[in-house]
Amino acid sequence: MSILPTPKSVVEAAERIAGRVVQTPVLRNAHLDEIAGANLFIKAECLQETGSFKLRGATNRLMQVPLERRSAGVVAYSSGNHAQGIARAARRLGMPAVIVMPRDAPAIKMAGVQADGADLVLYDRDRENRESMAAEIAQAKGAVVVPSYDDPMIITGQGTCGLEFGQQVQKLDTSLQHLVCCAGGGGLISGIALAFEALELSTEFWTAEPEGHEDWARSLAQKQIEKNAPGTRSICDAILTPEPGVLTWQIAGQRATGGCVVTDEHIKQAMRLAFRHLKVVVEPGGAAALAAALFALPEAAKDQNIGVVLTGANVDADQYARILAEDLQN
Amino acid sequence: MSILPTPKSVVEAAERIAGRVVQTPVLRNAHLDEIAGANLFIKAECLQETGSFKLRGATNRLMQVPLERRSAGVVAYSSGNHAQGIARAARRLGMPAVIVMPRDAPAIKMAGVQADGADLVLYDRDRENRESMAAEIAQAKGAVVVPSYDDPMIITGQGTCGLEFGQQVQKLDTSLQHLVCCAGGGGLISGIALAFEALELSTEFWTAEPEGHEDWARSLAQKQIEKNAPGTRSICDAILTPEPGVLTWQIAGQRATGGCVVTDEHIKQAMRLAFRHLKVVVEPGGAAALAAALFALPEAAKDQNIGVVLTGANVDADQYARILAEDLQN
Repeated sequence: MSILPTPKSVVEAAERIAGRVVQTPVLRNAHLDEIAGANLFIKAECLQETGSFKLRGATNRLMQVPLERRSAGVVAYSSGNHAQGIARAARRLGMPAVIVMPRDAPAIKMAGVQADGADLVLYDRDRENRESMAAEIAQAKGAVVVPSYDDPMIITGQGTCGLEFGQQVQKLDTSLQHLVCCAGGGGLISGIALAFEALELSTEFWTAEPEGHEDWARSLAQKQIEKNAPGTRSICDAILTPEPGVLTWQIAGQRATGGCVVTDEHIKQAMRLAFRHLKVVVEPGGAAALAAALFALPEAAKDQNIGVVLTGANVDADQYARILAEDLQN
Repeated sequence: MSILPTPKSVVEAAERIAGRVVQTPVLRNAHLDEIAGANLFIKAECLQETGSFKLRGATNRLMQVPLERRSAGVVAYSSGNHAQGIARAARRLGMPAVIVMPRDAPAIKMAGVQADGADLVLYDRDRENRESMAAEIAQAKGAVVVPSYDDPMIITGQGTCGLEFGQQVQKLDTSLQHLVCCAGGGGLISGIALAFEALELSTEFWTAEPEGHEDWARSLAQKQIEKNAPGTRSICDAILTPEPGVLTWQIAGQRATGGCVVTDEHIKQAMRLAFRHLKVVVEPGGAAALAAALFALPEAAKDQNIGVVLTGANVDADQYARILAEDLQN
């Protein structure tokens, strides 16, 4: 049984991975503030190396694999961003990596993993169990399995994004009353919540999810873990997990105020607005928090300072071009 | 006659405009380094507010308009990015602004100017003289004319991008042997060269231009100002000036080693690679330096540390989508 990570362990993770991840900027934009009816402080973590925050947790986790175990390698299952984070972190540490990834993952994510020399094993989202596939492969190799969110070192690694964000906002001599973060398994929002505790910031946390995958929103409302119906789809491939994680629910479930639910149309519009006004590429799942801030902000958060995390940018060029072009037809 | 700006005046400009412009990040990417055959340090100035570095010079210039002259306003002529910089800076200082812009400027640039409340006057790139149009409007209103590059305060304002860049690289405990920067009129590269002198950095400077508009490359080779043939076209709308400026030639003409020339195809590929690997949007002119670093780097610069400035990101969604899609057809 894993021990719950602490705020202090996020600070230690930041020291551990310093110089191995990019310090991503905080962007402001008056047009987006106007649409949201609030002051948005937008953490452009989509500019992180490998195109998502997942490199943080992967680096923090793999640096703690004992030297004598590294040659046996690592196995990870992931919709693609964690996969790329693990593949990059493993290559840097000289570890072989096997990635179990859904068959319908974006080509750009598969290519990213392979470019870092990892082996790719594909599975069917609805019919196969990726956890057991990963466990089998790991057992045969003696490799370590690194889950994508329910792991204390993954959570604290992702939390370094929050530590950086909180410190950047402090440097701007202001503070965030609220923070919106997408939630799949909930590793990032859990880590950020711990980081903000370490910085002694009092900020209300909100999850952002696409309609049909609002397990966090429902769980937070019911104060117990609620699952999504199996087989539902959204363009947010990165955050389609069946339910909150065990560890992440104990952390973020205690700390988040509630959940914002957005439609795929909101997500696409947020991607277009990020293109137009922020000049950053964001993938669907990575735009969920921005979509929530723009189109589904709780009344309590209006006119206040809202932290928004853009979490990933690994979107295929054809899908991105199509989403940009859709706007022009309206 | 204007006095040539000094390295010290760039430092003063940075103090003047501090907090009024975004500190844009320096990005690294192993894939791009491999393509270039060099270590690229990429200044993502495309993330600057208004989508280009031009806000820096505009802010620095307009802050120095005497209070009693501000109500008469400002007139600027520009292919679009300077226009947006002036419009934003003017609005913040409560100054009315009139912008003279080419009829074929991207819609996103016209919309940006109008969103900031400036009046727009359109001209024909080949048949009308924008300088005399601007002068006439300014005279009627008693407004100040702010040229887009041949102005000491514009040059030092743009130079703050270089000061920031140089300091960011110093923080990484390294240095740039070379720096590639697009050149239209040459305000930015002149300002950056002065900034690097202020920081006592010894870096070789290279201009980047599209084929047919390589006035800087030819001027540097001939050691005298050379003009482009009138009427030539490129997708790089932002950097299509007829010849180096008077002041900028005296600064950058003395300091740049030579010019890199890229094709429109190189530019488009650089935009696609920035999308895929850096996750930033770049407009054609803004991608010229990256295209040069990737596909037209002088032999002398191979295997070394190269600074690259991504200067702007105001590209229409339909053009951007088309450029991304072109890649998929190949």
